[in-house]
Amino acid sequence: MIGTGFMGAAHSQAFRVAPRFFDLPFHPEMTVIVGRDAAKTQAAAEKLGWAEASTDWREVVARDDVDLVDICSPGDSHAEIAIAALQAGKHVLCEKPLANTVEEARAMADAARDAAARGIRSMVGFSYRRVPALTFARELVQAGRIGEVRQARAAYLQDWLVDENGPMTWRLDKKLAGSGSLGDIGAHAVDAVQFITGQSVEQVSGHLRTFVTERPLLASGVGLSGTASDERGTVTVDDAAWFTGQLSGGAVASFEATRYATGRKNGLKIEIFGSRGAIVFDLEKMNELEFYDGADAAGEQGFRRIFVTEPEHPYAAAWWPTGHGLGYEHPFSHQVRDLIFDIAEERAPSPSFDDGLQVQQVLDAVERSSADSARWTTVS
Amino acid sequence: MIGTGFMGAAHSQAFRVAPRFFDLPFHPEMTVIVGRDAAKTQAAAEKLGWAEASTDWREVVARDDVDLVDICSPGDSHAEIAIAALQAGKHVLCEKPLANTVEEARAMADAARDAAARGIRSMVGFSYRRVPALTFARELVQAGRIGEVRQARAAYLQDWLVDENGPMTWRLDKKLAGSGSLGDIGAHAVDAVQFITGQSVEQVSGHLRTFVTERPLLASGVGLSGTASDERGTVTVDDAAWFTGQLSGGAVASFEATRYATGRKNGLKIEIFGSRGAIVFDLEKMNELEFYDGADAAGEQGFRRIFVTEPEHPYAAAWWPTGHGLGYEHPFSHQVRDLIFDIAEERAPSPSFDDGLQVQQVLDAVERSSADSARWTTVS
Amino acid sequence: MIGTGFMGAAHSQAFRVAPRFFDLPFHPEMTVIVGRDAAKTQAAAEKLGWAEASTDWREVVARDDVDLVDICSPGDSHAEIAIAALQAGKHVLCEKPLANTVEEARAMADAARDAAARGIRSMVGFSYRRVPALTFARELVQAGRIGEVRQARAAYLQDWLVDENGPMTWRLDKKLAGSGSLGDIGAHAVDAVQFITGQSVEQVSGHLRTFVTERPLLASGVGLSGTASDERGTVTVDDAAWFTGQLSGGAVASFEATRYATGRKNGLKIEIFGSRGAIVFDLEKMNELEFYDGADAAGEQGFRRIFVTEPEHPYAAAWWPTGHGLGYEHPFSHQVRDLIFDIAEERAPSPSFDDGLQVQQVLDAVERSSADSARWTTVS
Amino acid sequence: MIGTGFMGAAHSQAFRVAPRFFDLPFHPEMTVIVGRDAAKTQAAAEKLGWAEASTDWREVVARDDVDLVDICSPGDSHAEIAIAALQAGKHVLCEKPLANTVEEARAMADAARDAAARGIRSMVGFSYRRVPALTFARELVQAGRIGEVRQARAAYLQDWLVDENGPMTWRLDKKLAGSGSLGDIGAHAVDAVQFITGQSVEQVSGHLRTFVTERPLLASGVGLSGTASDERGTVTVDDAAWFTGQLSGGAVASFEATRYATGRKNGLKIEIFGSRGAIVFDLEKMNELEFYDGADAAGEQGFRRIFVTEPEHPYAAAWWPTGHGLGYEHPFSHQVRDLIFDIAEERAPSPSFDDGLQVQQVLDAVERSSADSARWTTVS
Repeated sequence: MIGTGFMGAAHSQAFRVAPRFFDLPFHPEMTVIVGRDAAKTQAAAEKLGWAEASTDWREVVARDDVDLVDICSPGDSHAEIAIAALQAGKHVLCEKPLANTVEEARAMADAARDAAARGIRSMVGFSYRRVPALTFARELVQAGRIGEVRQARAAYLQDWLVDENGPMTWRLDKKLAGSGSLGDIGAHAVDAVQFITGQSVEQVSGHLRTFVTERPLLASGVGLSGTASDERGTVTVDDAAWFTGQLSGGAVASFEATRYATGRKNGLKIEIFGSRGAIVFDLEKMNELEFYDGADAAGEQGFRRIFVTEPEHPYAAAWWPTGHGLGYEHPFSHQVRDLIFDIAEERAPSPSFDDGLQVQQVLDAVERSSADSARWTTVS
Repeated sequence: MIGTGFMGAAHSQAFRVAPRFFDLPFHPEMTVIVGRDAAKTQAAAEKLGWAEASTDWREVVARDDVDLVDICSPGDSHAEIAIAALQAGKHVLCEKPLANTVEEARAMADAARDAAARGIRSMVGFSYRRVPALTFARELVQAGRIGEVRQARAAYLQDWLVDENGPMTWRLDKKLAGSGSLGDIGAHAVDAVQFITGQSVEQVSGHLRTFVTERPLLASGVGLSGTASDERGTVTVDDAAWFTGQLSGGAVASFEATRYATGRKNGLKIEIFGSRGAIVFDLEKMNELEFYDGADAAGEQGFRRIFVTEPEHPYAAAWWPTGHGLGYEHPFSHQVRDLIFDIAEERAPSPSFDDGLQVQQVLDAVERSSADSARWTTVS
Repeated sequence: MIGTGFMGAAHSQAFRVAPRFFDLPFHPEMTVIVGRDAAKTQAAAEKLGWAEASTDWREVVARDDVDLVDICSPGDSHAEIAIAALQAGKHVLCEKPLANTVEEARAMADAARDAAARGIRSMVGFSYRRVPALTFARELVQAGRIGEVRQARAAYLQDWLVDENGPMTWRLDKKLAGSGSLGDIGAHAVDAVQFITGQSVEQVSGHLRTFVTERPLLASGVGLSGTASDERGTVTVDDAAWFTGQLSGGAVASFEATRYATGRKNGLKIEIFGSRGAIVFDLEKMNELEFYDGADAAGEQGFRRIFVTEPEHPYAAAWWPTGHGLGYEHPFSHQVRDLIFDIAEERAPSPSFDDGLQVQQVLDAVERSSADSARWTTVS
Repeated sequence: MIGTGFMGAAHSQAFRVAPRFFDLPFHPEMTVIVGRDAAKTQAAAEKLGWAEASTDWREVVARDDVDLVDICSPGDSHAEIAIAALQAGKHVLCEKPLANTVEEARAMADAARDAAARGIRSMVGFSYRRVPALTFARELVQAGRIGEVRQARAAYLQDWLVDENGPMTWRLDKKLAGSGSLGDIGAHAVDAVQFITGQSVEQVSGHLRTFVTERPLLASGVGLSGTASDERGTVTVDDAAWFTGQLSGGAVASFEATRYATGRKNGLKIEIFGSRGAIVFDLEKMNELEFYDGADAAGEQGFRRIFVTEPEHPYAAAWWPTGHGLGYEHPFSHQVRDLIFDIAEERAPSPSFDDGLQVQQVLDAVERSSADSARWTTVS
C-alpha cells in the first residue's frame, strides 16, 4: 500500500473487510504500508492494520513477500511507482486518475500490457463502477432494457471550495494534482457513463473555469484541516469543468464537474436516456437506482426507485438482508474481491490501465478544447 | 350556491371552468349565491361570477330557476338546507362532512333516498376522490394490481394551529364545526381509504386530543386573518385524532389527523399495502402516484413515480399535455363534471349522502371510542 | 386572441380566471378569437368563452372594441400580427419564442419600442417567470441570499419524441417552428436562468442534434393525435440542444433541452449555485422551491423544500390556503394580472419584446456555434 | 460473542472496524465465538475473525481471558447468558430486544444493576440510536430546536412476509422470538422515539394482527433460505402491530410495525412534531435528516435535507469526507466505540438494561391492550 491518506484508509478497510464477507480464493495479507514521514507512516500502519511501515517504496516493490502493490499516493507519483512495480512482477491496483498526463498514462498502460503477457494483473481504481446500483445499471443497459442510448447527463457536484478563503491544498496545484475538478471527479463521471453505456467518448467540446484564482497558503498541516497563513498561492487547476461528448454509439453526453455546487456534498448524478427506457442515479443516494421501463403499460410508466440491496443485485447478497444499505467504502471491498478473483483465475481485471488511459485522453481532449475556444476535439 | 368562503370560491371556480374543458350535456348557469351579509354576498357574487346575491337561502331553494343547490356553508347548517332543497325538488351538492352529527346526516341521507325516488340527485363533496391520482389508485386496486389489501396507512397532516396564540376560529367551536381535525380532515382520510380499497371501516379504536385548550378570541374579523382580542375562548374540538380501523375486507387501517404537524401544509398521505403490490400518495404531490408492482421481476421492483397527467389517466385528457400538472381546485371541476353527467343520465352520483352518513358514523365511533378508553367500537 | 390551440386554451383560461382571484383595475372582456378554420374557430369561441369568432386577424386587430391582442399562433406568424397590432395602437401579449428569427424579433422589438412611446404596452409570454416558486427564487437571489452566482444548470427535459415512429408535426418543421427543442423549451430555460440570476448570456458554445431524421407524415388531423400516413417527411429542426453560456456577471451556465429524455414529462430543472447558497427548482414539482442557505449554522445546512403556497409568496395569497398547490395554468393568470396592471398604471411590462429579442439572439448564437464546431460565439 | 447469525456478523464487523477509525482507550481482542454447531461455529470464527470457536457458552463466560460478552443469540437465551456473564464479572452487550418477556428482562436489569455496583458494565444493543442522523436528531430536540414535542409518528415497515407461502422461521415462533413485528422492529421504533424526545411511553392502546396464520415448515436449513416442506406450522406471533402511546412529557405517539408493507424494505420512519419545528427520518435514507426550523423567516420555512456526514455531526468525523455516506453496519461500530469508552472511563453505558426493560414493558403493555379490546393500558 503506497499512501496513508484518505484513499489509503479506504483501501485498507477494503483489504481487511472483503475476506470477511466474500469467499475469496485466498486471504490478502496486509504486509507493509509506505508513506513519506516515518512516524506518521508507522502510526498509520498500526491504525489501518498493516504489519510494517516503510518510507521507501522502491524497496517495498522489490520485496519478495509483496505480491500486490496498491497505489494511493498523489497522481504525480503513479507512473513511476506503477511501472516499477509491474516490472518487478507485482500486480498493481492504482487509484484514479491513472496519471497526471496522457504521456504518463500511456507509459503505464504499455507497462501493464507488457506485464499482462507475463501474467501480471493491473487495475485502475474507478471504484464507483462497483457501487451495486451502477453495476446493476450497466446490466440493465447491456440487456437492452432502455433500448438504444441517446443521451447521457452526468454531473459530479461538490461544494468544498465554495468558501473563497478556504486554503490552497495540493489538489489545487497542477503539478501535484494534474487538474482540478476535471481529473478528480470529472474522471469518475466519464468512466461511469462509458461503463454503463458501453460507449466511449470520441469527441469533446469543453470549457474549464477557475472561479477563485488565489487562496491562502497553509502555514502548517495539510489539506483542509491545516492552518492558513497570510500569504496567498495561485490556484493552477480548474475549479469547474463543462463538456459535451460524442459517444461511439451515436449518443451525446453532457458532463459537468465542480467543487462550487453549494449544497451538493458528493453528488455524482447520472441520467441515461434510451429509446425504450431510462436510468437515473445519484451517489448521495447510492443504494438506489431509478429505472424507467418504457415497456410498462401506458399510464403505468414511471421511474421506479429500486433499492439495490436484494440478493439478485450485484455484490449485495454478501452483505446484509434486503433493505440494509451500504456506505461509501463498500465498493472498495468489491474492487478487492474482484481483483483477487482476477488474479486467482488469471483474468484481465477491469477497468484496465488501458481504460484508465482512455479516460485520461478524454480529460486531455477537454483541456485542449477549452484552450481552443471550446471547439470539437478528438479524443486521442 | 350557499356559502361565500373558501369552499364557495372553490366551487364557483369549478362551475365556471368545468364546461370550458369538458364536453358536458348542458352548461351550468350560475344563478344566485347566498350569504349572511348582504354587502359581502353582493361582492362575492360579482367576484365569483354569480348573476345574483341573496341572504335568504329558503327563498333561493324555492326558486323555479334553480335546479341545483350547492351547500358550502358551515356544517351546522347542512342538514336544514339540504333537506329543504331536496324536498323542493332540487339536486344537491353538499360539502363534506355531510353534517355535524350522525343524526343530522341520517336525516339527510333519508331525504336524499326519498328524493332519488323522484329523480332528484345528491352528492357529498369528497372532492379528493377526483384527484386523478386517487381515482387512478382505485382503478389499480379494483383491477387487482396490488392483490388483497392488508394494511392502509392514512394521515392528514397540517400545521396551521401550531402557534398556541393563534386565534379561536369557528373551526375550533364544536357547535359550529362538529369536531376538529377529525371531521375536517380525518373525514377525507377515511373517505379516501374506503374509496381506494373498496372496503369500509367497521370497528375503530381511537383517541382524540386537544393540545391547546384556550385561544385568543377574535375582536373583529373572521378566520385566521381576524384581529385577536385579549379575551380567550375555550377550544371545544379535538386538535388531533388517531384511530385504527378494521375494514370490511379484513384489512387494518391506521388513521391520523392533526393540525399540529409542524411543517406539513396539506399532507394527506396514503399508503395501501396489498399482497401483490402497494400504492402511495401524498396530496402535497397531487399529480404523482407511487405504485409498487410485485409482478415486476425480482431485483427490478420498486415504487414507480407515475406522473398522473397522461391521456390514459382519469380526467387528465381534458386538461393539458402530458406532464403539465393540475392544482388544488381541479378536482372540484371533475366533481361538477361528474354530477352534471349523473343528472343528465339519471344516475345516482357517488359519493352519495349514504356514503357521507357512513363516514359520519366512523367519526362518531372514533369519538365514542376515545371517550371509552380507546376500546374497539362498532361503526353504526 | 389569435390562435385556438393549446396556448389559446391556456390564455383563455387566464383571462376568464384572473379577475375572479385578483382585484384588477378593470375586467377584461373576451371579445373575439381568431383561427384559420371558420367552423373550428366558432367551436373554440364557444368552448373557451369568447363572444365572437373570426378567421381574419387583420380585421380583428383593426377593430375599435379590441384593446389587447394576444398572439398564440405558431411562431412564423408572430412578427406580422404583432407589428400590425402595435401599429394599430393595440397592446400586445405574444407567446414565446418571440419569433422564428432574430430579424423578425428585432422588427417586433423595434415596433414595440415605437408603440411604447405612444403608451402602447407589449409583453412576451415567458409564463414560467410567474410560477410563484421562480418569482420567489429571483427575489431570494436579488436579496443576496445565495451570494454571488457562480454556476447555473438548466435542463428542460421532455420525452414526447422518444418513439421514432411518432408523426411529423409542425413543431418539427423549421419553416413553421423556427427551431426544435432549442426554441420551444430551451428558450424557457434561457429566460428562467437570466430572470433568476439577473445576468444575461453573452457567449455560447453549443451543439444541436437531430436523432430521428425522418418521421411519418400525417395523413389527416394535426399534432400528435393525427393519423400517420405511409409517407415520411424530413425533420428539419433539432431534437436536442446542449450549450454552455458565459453570463454577464461572471457566472457560467449549462443548458440542455431535449424531447428525448425518456421518462421526463415536463422537467424544467434549474439549479443556481452561489457563493453563499443555492436554489433548485423542478417544474414537475412546481409548487416547491429548494433553497440552501449557507448562513445556516454548520451541521444544520441542507436544502429546504419550501412549499411556495404561503401568503408571503408571490401571487399565492390570491388563491388557496397554505399548502394547496397551483397547476400548470395558473402562471398564465398571473401574466394577465400583471399585464392589466401594467396597462392601467402605464408601466412597461416585463418581459418586454426586447427581452424576447435577446433570448432569440441567444438561440441564434447557439445555432451559429453548433454550425461552427461548437466554438464560443457572441450573442448579438 | 454468542451467536453466529446476522447479528453475529454485524457485531463482529464492529469489533474489527471500530479501532481502525476511532482512537480507543484499548483495542478489543476477538477471543472466542460461540454457536450451537461445532463445525459451523468454527467456520464462522474464521470468516468473522475470532481466534477460537466454542459450543459451550457457560465455559466461555467463565474464561479469564474474556472481559466482555456480546450476546447475539435469539431472545429466549438472553436472560440466562447475560445473568451468568454479569455474575461472572463480565461486561455485557446484549442485542435487543433485551428478552422475550418482562420477567426475564427484569431479572436481567436487576443483575445489571448489581453488577454495576461492582464496576461491571452492560448495554442493550439499540444500535439505531447511533445512526448519526438519529443521534443528531436527539441533540436538536434536547437543544429546544423544535420546541415542546407534541406528536411523534413512528413506523417500521418491512415486507419480507408478504408472500403467504414464505416459510415458517424461528422468528414466527413465539417461544423463540417472544413476539413478531412488535418486538423485532416495533422495539426499535419505541426506543428511537423515546431516545429522540427524551419522553417515555406511559400508556398504550394497541392492536396486534396475524395476517397469515399458517406457513410451510422448513424441511431443512434455516431462515428464509431453507427449503420449505409440505407440512405447515402455526404462526404464533403478530405479523403487524399498531399502537398509540401517551408520553411522559404530554406528547402522543403513534407506532406501527409490520413485515407486510409491500415495497418497504427497511423503512423505519420517524416524524417528531414540536411547537417550534419538526424532525423527519427514514432509515432507508439513513445519512439524511430532515429538519424544519420554525425560527426561519416566514415564507422561507421548509424541511431541510441535512446530509449528516459533516465533521460537526456525531461520529461522522471519524469516517470519510463530507458527503460520503455510511451504511447499515456503521452504527454497530459506534456502539462498540461508546461501550469501550464507557468501560475505560467507568461510566454507565446507555441504553442500559433498565432502558431495555422499559421498552420490554411497553411491548408487554401493547400485548395486554390488544388482548383487552385496545383499552389504554399502563406501562409497568
